[in-house]
Amino acid sequence: MRKLLVIGIGAGSPEYVTVQAIDALNRARVFFVFDKGEAKSDLVALRQEICERFIENDDYRFVSIDDPMRDPQPHGYKRGVEAWHRARAEKLVERIVSEVADGECGAFLVWGDPSLYDSTLRLIDLVREERRFAFEIEVIPGISSVQALAARHGLILNTIGGSVMVTTGRELAERGWPEAADSIVVMLDRGDGLRAAAREDVEIYWGALLGTPRERLVSGKLTDVIDEIERIRAQEKAASGWIMDIYLLRRSRPD
Amino acid sequence: MRKLLVIGIGAGSPEYVTVQAIDALNRARVFFVFDKGEAKSDLVALRQEICERFIENDDYRFVSIDDPMRDPQPHGYKRGVEAWHRARAEKLVERIVSEVADGECGAFLVWGDPSLYDSTLRLIDLVREERRFAFEIEVIPGISSVQALAARHGLILNTIGGSVMVTTGRELAERGWPEAADSIVVMLDRGDGLRAAAREDVEIYWGALLGTPRERLVSGKLTDVIDEIERIRAQEKAASGWIMDIYLLRRSRPD
Ligand SMILES: C[S@@+](CC[C@H](N)C(=O)[O-])C[C@H]1O[C@@H](n2cnc3c(N)ncnc32)[C@H](O)[C@@H]1O
Ligand SMILES: C[S@@+](CC[C@H](N)C(=O)[O-])C[C@H]1O[C@@H](n2cnc3c(N)ncnc32)[C@H](O)[C@@H]1O
Repeated sequence: MRKLLVIGIGAGSPEYVTVQAIDALNRARVFFVFDKGEAKSDLVALRQEICERFIENDDYRFVSIDDPMRDPQPHGYKRGVEAWHRARAEKLVERIVSEVADGECGAFLVWGDPSLYDSTLRLIDLVREERRFAFEIEVIPGISSVQALAARHGLILNTIGGSVMVTTGRELAERGWPEAADSIVVMLDRGDGLRAAAREDVEIYWGALLGTPRERLVSGKLTDVIDEIERIRAQEKAASGWIMDIYLLRRSRPD
Repeated sequence: MRKLLVIGIGAGSPEYVTVQAIDALNRARVFFVFDKGEAKSDLVALRQEICERFIENDDYRFVSIDDPMRDPQPHGYKRGVEAWHRARAEKLVERIVSEVADGECGAFLVWGDPSLYDSTLRLIDLVREERRFAFEIEVIPGISSVQALAARHGLILNTIGGSVMVTTGRELAERGWPEAADSIVVMLDRGDGLRAAAREDVEIYWGALLGTPRERLVSGKLTDVIDEIERIRAQEKAASGWIMDIYLLRRSRPD
């Protein structure tokens, strides 16, 4: 049987790698990487650094593949998209089978933790449905950007006995502040989440490029620090074409 | 200056320890452990196992302290509790200062990740407010039980573009299903969260004692598997006096 490992490598620093992940890295022969274009080559570089640092021999290789979850039609046309995914999944299974011999181990390195806003496990589900070949699947958790953010600010995400919502910038902008949570972690924000939040009376704990040498941290009352955050976002984007940032918002509960 | 490390050790398996945590373990001379009584001695054992396995010399010791966040009055009397916390914090600072020499490193080992339902960082905040001594603080993230659960079931916590709520059994029982989330992770449930959820039409992905040799996993439609889960909970509690479990609930969104 072929084995596929989905390995969370942590969100930014090679130091976030776990003992379990190091063990998994050393079991894999082939590392599949999704081709996301040149812009995010720092992310690819981290993956290579991790392999070089933690794998004990040289007997492994990287195989670049198209991302079959990259959606041609971002919204609507659900059925069309599913057929398209299936076609890509079939191709992918053939590719995996040709690269990973029976009894061998292939691996997907996932930024942060595989359970948060990452499509690799959806892909694995498609692969599993392709019944011509059997794969054993193993998922290895990794330090997510949520935890990196909390650690760098020394934060507990929940207030005492309270709930935490993890959401996206788009959801926050479209749906407003959720009733049920006094603490909200926002990921994948293009800027509209931050602007929507600025209408509320909240504290923000913000971090960009966490765990990397270019890490930036800002915290304070959102209305006081939003300009600084937007300036840093613009600077970093201008410098490298992209930015990854995440933040906790907290509304003070009336006592 | 004295340094205090708050080290997330992962939620159950020594394999969850990160490279950063191993490095931190090797910098600390003194490990403070909260005395929580005998019942949870397995948890204490894991901490010792981690130190023995990952610390390179024997030049460290464990110091047991009373948990100053353990609340004498679980609810209400907020001001009284604060004064009480402050008194305990003062004592704790004296204890830390007497155990950790200037220029040395003390550490708190935190189960899972320090940012989720753990009071160590609140304690550290109190210590920081004690202005007679200066401490440098460093927080090291760890694999939380949320991630262990997701990995063992191969789950992505969020639906595409959706939000995830992390909450407690009590909150779920008292406040009902939150409008804003279709995926809810429930921690710290004494059983009432599960019973409240059983009124909804949901899928559950449940895990107990994750990462340990006694790990148990159950998934399915909640109404189909709730009896099995309650049976396992009762069994494990009878066997060792306690249980740690966590689950993801997911309500299917109408398309
Ligand atoms: C596609 S999601 C992947 C999340 C990842 N699976 C995790 O566990 O963190 C990408 C988003 O994660 C957040 N993110 C990931 N790494 C980050 C980092 N090092 N610093 C700040 N934000 C980060 C940002 O919100 C970014 O938009
Ligand atoms: C006081 S909270 C601590 C959470 C911890 N800081 C973390 O990151 O997972 C304890 C709760 O965490 C969950 N938990 C912790 N470890 C677990 C494990 N190994 N298996 C299942 N649930 C666990 C349970 O819901 C338990 O009631």
